[in-house]
Amino acid sequence: MSHFAPVALHQASRLINHGPTVLVTSAHGGRANVMAAAWSMPVEFTPPRIAVVIDKKTYTRELIAASGAFGICLPGAALAALTFAVGSTSGYDEDKIARHGIQTRPGPVLGMPVIEQGCAAWLECRLIPEPHTQDAYDTCFAEVVAAAADARIFASGRWDYRDDNTELQTIHHLGAGNFVRAGGVVRGAA
Amino acid sequence: MSHFAPVALHQASRLINHGPTVLVTSAHGGRANVMAAAWSMPVEFTPPRIAVVIDKKTYTRELIAASGAFGICLPGAALAALTFAVGSTSGYDEDKIARHGIQTRPGPVLGMPVIEQGCAAWLECRLIPEPHTQDAYDTCFAEVVAAAADARIFASGRWDYRDDNTELQTIHHLGAGNFVRAGGVVRGAA
Repeated sequence: MSHFAPVALHQASRLINHGPTVLVTSAHGGRANVMAAAWSMPVEFTPPRIAVVIDKKTYTRELIAASGAFGICLPGAALAALTFAVGSTSGYDEDKIARHGIQTRPGPVLGMPVIEQGCAAWLECRLIPEPHTQDAYDTCFAEVVAAAADARIFASGRWDYRDDNTELQTIHHLGAGNFVRAGGVVRGAA
Repeated sequence: MSHFAPVALHQASRLINHGPTVLVTSAHGGRANVMAAAWSMPVEFTPPRIAVVIDKKTYTRELIAASGAFGICLPGAALAALTFAVGSTSGYDEDKIARHGIQTRPGPVLGMPVIEQGCAAWLECRLIPEPHTQDAYDTCFAEVVAAAADARIFASGRWDYRDDNTELQTIHHLGAGNFVRAGGVVRGAA
């Protein structure tokens, strides 16, 4: 049973506000791929826009160029090994989705493959063509057109990190396959 | 006594690889400012380049436009309240550095103010002028020209999150003044 529920678009940027490592999913013409990306960030709340760095040599970039869209999925801590694995091989060399038995479903607006099992949330994104930044910095801007999250960890527009949902908590790549899991909540507001 | 030691430039991007909330420092003509930014990411390891979203209405953007440079400082968990405070007021309204008694020192290459007390690391950055992305997405690209980190938590190019350095561990903004502190290390590599 899926615990996923839609996230309002004006709250979608919050899903990556804290810098999680993400899985980038892509598809075109019957082919699909998944890769890991440590480098992404929101750039605007309304309209919800993000930026993500995707190397121009990747199969993902080829599929995004063809479809003009991609998915962003947030792996929970239980998917750390899978995240590292799909970040270490190329879709040019193997069908990573089949190899790892990853279950995807089509996103509601663009049909991009999104992953729910083991993930905390996903965002379906339409590329905003910016040839210069794509070329010079491998930086792809996109508008978020749909989003959803597992209600056990993100509900009513807010993250809720608790002792009983550690497997869904986002992971943040330190390098060399080591991630930190988001841990204790620190309150900065008075 | 400072525990800060230089970080090799080819390893500088690792400092923000895991998506910490940062403090952006700026200075020009005797004026200086500090603000919080949740949205930053590396875009390249070599040369070390980053992107950070800084609203064009901020005093920080005015100072960066004048100096062509800024600092990125990584507040540890002990600075969560300060981070939220300097992210909630404008340098147009008050001298935040004086108000909060923040100790800064000039960075070694560009003289940008950097903060060591309570911080895990800092990067001194030279703006790469990109008028379109600065205007359309408030996204500022920059090259890192110097970096240093507290050796108790980042040494030999690697983060080391331990039970005895929780106060220096980076914070990641969930929204509304709530941060998660990077917690347990999850190993994704075999």
